[in-house]
Amino acid sequence: MNKKNCMVAQSGGPTVAINASLAGVIHGVMVSEIYDTIYGSVNGILGILNDNLLNLNETIRKNTDNLETLKQSPAMYLGSCRFKLPDFMDDDSSYNYIFRQFEKLNIGAFFYIGGNDSMDTVLKLSDYAKRIGSDIRIIGIPKTIDNDLMITDHTPGFGSAAKYVAASLLEIAHDTFIYAVKSVTIVEIMGRDAGWLTAAAALARNEYSNAPHLIYLPETNFDKDKFLNDVRSLLEKQNNIIIAISEGIHDASGSYINAGESQKDSFGHSQLSGAGKALEYLIKDNINVKVRSVEINVLQRCAAHLSSQTDLDEAFAQGETAVTLAKEGITASMVTIQRTSNTPYTVEYGHAEIKNIANEAKRVPREWINEAGNDVLPEMIAYLMPLIQGEPQVTYKNGLPVYMEVSHLSHCR
Amino acid sequence: MNKKNCMVAQSGGPTVAINASLAGVIHGVMVSEIYDTIYGSVNGILGILNDNLLNLNETIRKNTDNLETLKQSPAMYLGSCRFKLPDFMDDDSSYNYIFRQFEKLNIGAFFYIGGNDSMDTVLKLSDYAKRIGSDIRIIGIPKTIDNDLMITDHTPGFGSAAKYVAASLLEIAHDTFIYAVKSVTIVEIMGRDAGWLTAAAALARNEYSNAPHLIYLPETNFDKDKFLNDVRSLLEKQNNIIIAISEGIHDASGSYINAGESQKDSFGHSQLSGAGKALEYLIKDNINVKVRSVEINVLQRCAAHLSSQTDLDEAFAQGETAVTLAKEGITASMVTIQRTSNTPYTVEYGHAEIKNIANEAKRVPREWINEAGNDVLPEMIAYLMPLIQGEPQVTYKNGLPVYMEVSHLSHCR
Repeated sequence: MNKKNCMVAQSGGPTVAINASLAGVIHGVMVSEIYDTIYGSVNGILGILNDNLLNLNETIRKNTDNLETLKQSPAMYLGSCRFKLPDFMDDDSSYNYIFRQFEKLNIGAFFYIGGNDSMDTVLKLSDYAKRIGSDIRIIGIPKTIDNDLMITDHTPGFGSAAKYVAASLLEIAHDTFIYAVKSVTIVEIMGRDAGWLTAAAALARNEYSNAPHLIYLPETNFDKDKFLNDVRSLLEKQNNIIIAISEGIHDASGSYINAGESQKDSFGHSQLSGAGKALEYLIKDNINVKVRSVEINVLQRCAAHLSSQTDLDEAFAQGETAVTLAKEGITASMVTIQRTSNTPYTVEYGHAEIKNIANEAKRVPREWINEAGNDVLPEMIAYLMPLIQGEPQVTYKNGLPVYMEVSHLSHCR
Repeated sequence: MNKKNCMVAQSGGPTVAINASLAGVIHGVMVSEIYDTIYGSVNGILGILNDNLLNLNETIRKNTDNLETLKQSPAMYLGSCRFKLPDFMDDDSSYNYIFRQFEKLNIGAFFYIGGNDSMDTVLKLSDYAKRIGSDIRIIGIPKTIDNDLMITDHTPGFGSAAKYVAASLLEIAHDTFIYAVKSVTIVEIMGRDAGWLTAAAALARNEYSNAPHLIYLPETNFDKDKFLNDVRSLLEKQNNIIIAISEGIHDASGSYINAGESQKDSFGHSQLSGAGKALEYLIKDNINVKVRSVEINVLQRCAAHLSSQTDLDEAFAQGETAVTLAKEGITASMVTIQRTSNTPYTVEYGHAEIKNIANEAKRVPREWINEAGNDVLPEMIAYLMPLIQGEPQVTYKNGLPVYMEVSHLSHCR
């Protein structure tokens, strides 16, 4: 009997752990007894539509050093896409093409590693498979630094981003404490609708530093007068204030604080400001104090040299679990992680029907935020702490981390 | 005979290596046979003026673990200041006070770790010591991520910042290459007048990535039309363009590109834009392509978890050298480093008269920049490469790097 093959793709925004899940899938197929070749679709689902496929047995599998390097490399070895499949009731041509490709390559299982939007693709492909009576397993593997997927305890990529944010806040605190003059530093952290990653800034606190001294998440409404009062009353007690904010903070009407009116730069072109800049200038205009804002930016999702080993291991395990699920006949599902104990921290892997996950978002519970809406509570710290533990042994060459080469992404040179 | 004591202080902006020089001074005094106590002046020269002194024998010296942790900790254990001593011909009251303090504490040598402005303080104290016939040795120990001090081959703190910038550029490249759509990413790097640190972005290039594809330093005039042409012609050949720019790029008239006109944010307050944002909007307005800008910001000078071991070792050695120089009777000088060979990389430590260093700035030689002014040449790479080599063994606790606690900086809580 001919062994079936598998296909895997990556989609959405980068994280530090999405290649660890890919490595887990490749390893899972490698040790499975029922699957043969693992194909990689380049640039998400687009690779199938454009016939841009890699044979991962050839590029990765035969060399386990590659597998370990892949596990530690940021962003996506297979590239990504931001592509929303149409509803197949309106237009099933791309579905037709995808499943003909699956058949041609004798695919038994398709794995899609991604966030919320990618799970929409998993849902649609699952529904289509059911409709045409295909037995191809369709399994989603989560990833997002936003940590906003339903049902699963947390998402691969989040723990590493949280570690990077917390370490950066600690380093910014050291940078800030050196001057004996009053100052305010605002640090803007990714997370448009969910404040998980901004909350991780609280992990920077230790025996000698309470920074960040204020934390604002998008789960509560931001009130600029209350904010200015928070800053003023802290400035009476201490010199340096460090504030962590989500990029998605908004007022009671839902308007983002970074909405910004049209602005002109030195070339006379219009600009928009981020939330951090907006608060920097709000303070400048209202309180006589030195103030600056720092946007951590894309490094929080791609600085693989400071990953959480827990995150990488769990991402890898979720890739392997996806293969196991497919072998067991599970389809139309996403791999999940359940926390079975917090001290000691233990988890179990499972799965949930994709229809309960796609297109929903998990936000920080209001009861994990203090009443004033300017800090997080111990429940949040307890939830976050295990996720940033452990450091991978990063290999350096010529002074820089060694990552998996991506020259097959034709646009990389 | 009573042994003399020493005093040390730190000044100017933070770097990752300035505490390594402090550790070197403390160790140098510890193993010297002629010096006893090493006092730390908190917040630079202000600590002497405000009687805010630490006995470093008590807080650091007796525990060598502390010395190693201190060597790896970012920013300043002793805090910093931005304080310019007046000319003593105009007002010698603070000089009077400082030297009375020195006498009271039986100080034989004063070490000041800092950048350009701090060397001005070393010069003034040296001149004053000469004038009053004091035999107290006054020695400057360089540090600055800008690498713009005269005479010395390079400055402590620069190598680590260069390593962080190069690693970040590599990680941003991985983050960028994943999408099969044309895009431009602009990365703004610190360096108002000198482009050394921005040039280090070129170290991110490897076998599979040429990013950054364009590099603009403040040593050449920035021309927006030439810039747009550079971007347009690259976009004809490739999908993703990554551009490194100094925050200090300026046009032929000397006006900073980030000068910016008054802008309004969502609260109606005026804002200024950085060079990265200005170029982002210049491209948006002229070329139909996805574009974003990233400001690496303060992390490039405080992310001690990604230090260069070469940099930390050299910073430590320069601290030790300062003590040796003082013992030999040298004064009115700054410690220097000379590169005696590049392959293999070897250095020697020396000193130079402070009057030849203070208030001067070393810029990137024009012949290390290509003629078009949009890249650096192999001479620059050869100069930079040895400086980012080696990684310290960072200690982690609860998932975060362990740094020297700074609770004596009263404003840190």
